[in-house]
Amino acid sequence: MELTFDLGRQILQQQAFSRLLGAELTRLERDCTELQLALRPELLQQNGFVHGGVLCYLADNALTYAGGLALGTRVVTAEFKINYVRPALGSLVVARAAVVHAGKRQAVCRCDVFVDADGGERLVATALGTIAVAGTKSAA
Amino acid sequence: MELTFDLGRQILQQQAFSRLLGAELTRLERDCTELQLALRPELLQQNGFVHGGVLCYLADNALTYAGGLALGTRVVTAEFKINYVRPALGSLVVARAAVVHAGKRQAVCRCDVFVDADGGERLVATALGTIAVAGTKSAA
Amino acid sequence: MELTFDLGRQILQQQAFSRLLGAELTRLERDCTELQLALRPELLQQNGFVHGGVLCYLADNALTYAGGLALGTRVVTAEFKINYVRPALGSLVVARAAVVHAGKRQAVCRCDVFVDADGGERLVATALGTIAVAGTKSAA
Amino acid sequence: MELTFDLGRQILQQQAFSRLLGAELTRLERDCTELQLALRPELLQQNGFVHGGVLCYLADNALTYAGGLALGTRVVTAEFKINYVRPALGSLVVARAAVVHAGKRQAVCRCDVFVDADGGERLVATALGTIAVAGTKSAA
Repeated sequence: MELTFDLGRQILQQQAFSRLLGAELTRLERDCTELQLALRPELLQQNGFVHGGVLCYLADNALTYAGGLALGTRVVTAEFKINYVRPALGSLVVARAAVVHAGKRQAVCRCDVFVDADGGERLVATALGTIAVAGTKSAA
Repeated sequence: MELTFDLGRQILQQQAFSRLLGAELTRLERDCTELQLALRPELLQQNGFVHGGVLCYLADNALTYAGGLALGTRVVTAEFKINYVRPALGSLVVARAAVVHAGKRQAVCRCDVFVDADGGERLVATALGTIAVAGTKSAA
Repeated sequence: MELTFDLGRQILQQQAFSRLLGAELTRLERDCTELQLALRPELLQQNGFVHGGVLCYLADNALTYAGGLALGTRVVTAEFKINYVRPALGSLVVARAAVVHAGKRQAVCRCDVFVDADGGERLVATALGTIAVAGTKSAA
Repeated sequence: MELTFDLGRQILQQQAFSRLLGAELTRLERDCTELQLALRPELLQQNGFVHGGVLCYLADNALTYAGGLALGTRVVTAEFKINYVRPALGSLVVARAAVVHAGKRQAVCRCDVFVDADGGERLVATALGTIAVAGTKSAA
């Protein structure tokens, strides 16, 4: 089943955890899949920065959408790596992902995560991972 | 400042995002730092499994505690990689981390993430990452 | 086809690059796959340490053997991450890998890399990666 | 000390392992650091493809040059992750890396690895890693 923007938004709404955090799918195109998350106090850590868990959640999900667009809708993140490059401070987090290479069962995708800052955007994390068609990864 | 079990629990309570998710620090020893998270519907994805974002949050935090125990309290996760090995289904997620190697400014740590299942535990993810003394990683 | 110790050694001999470096398969058991590499000047970098490329070659290959033991002989490394934890100085490099979780098509494996030092062993790198049955990863 | 193209080439010549493999630094610019490696039978694995160890060596080194350009000459690769996306077949491997974010002591860099194929280039691997100023990573 092809992943469309509307279907992508429906899937996100069906993820209770994504609703809890408040993520929104804002773009779903071949060269850019974008998720946004409005920041609020519940998403921060002890020093007032966005919790790393929020950034890795958003990166993971954006990677999954990028892979899903290439592979079809039933996909899972098999693995990913994330580098946090700066403390994240702002009112909005934006994750943008794209496919680096897609095969039949797996796609390798990358993702950059930004916060809005001073009217512009500031890179806070970058990620690289593998999205697999559901049922084909190492799950027994 | 040395990271003790009580201080570790205080820090977790100061993380609004950790309170939102409900994580608890249940062990802080040289060979094992353990975080637990009771599962509830808000933490799931569309197929009823624990959302990957919950697992990577917990792995990230457990890695940070393992690194903090070796390096001191003011640490951040610089980067990590996570492999999801099975869909996660259960009532409790447990992340256990330990230091692989610690220097003065950085510690390399690994973490396994389990769900309780059929009275036992089931591995659902494994992670490897770098914890850095705050202020010494690539933050400008 | 099951991967035996003899077959494993044959495969290594068929890898021209492994012959060029001089790697040897020294153990192939469920809980530990071991490769060894005698050091010589050609394997060093400008400061006299073992070149990182040698360490990541050995980690990659040890991961592949660990995955191959669980999955069968025709496997490839799909991805891996390596953390170098210390400059590597010695006369022998040893990489030990084991499966963390194996499914039907993929296995997640970890590997520690040591150099001999002062009569003992010294950890110089640690790795985590995914081994896939050949033909099922993202190769078009 | 600033890393120039000439100095970069000298350093590569001082790496015995890089001479053994035959790598050449072909570009050293802010937005692209490029290493090339002419393929020969010694660099292959048992099925005639370029050995993964060659690709991860080249990615690692290209990442180091990208980080060195941003941070200065005395740098080391602290960690990296590589995804192999296709079997590599060709007569030349090219790795191109760039900095994603540089701080004072660390730089996060990414790298794509290609083989020449049918007159064009074919992506065979992609990597993401951390380059650190020598002496500041976790080395004891």
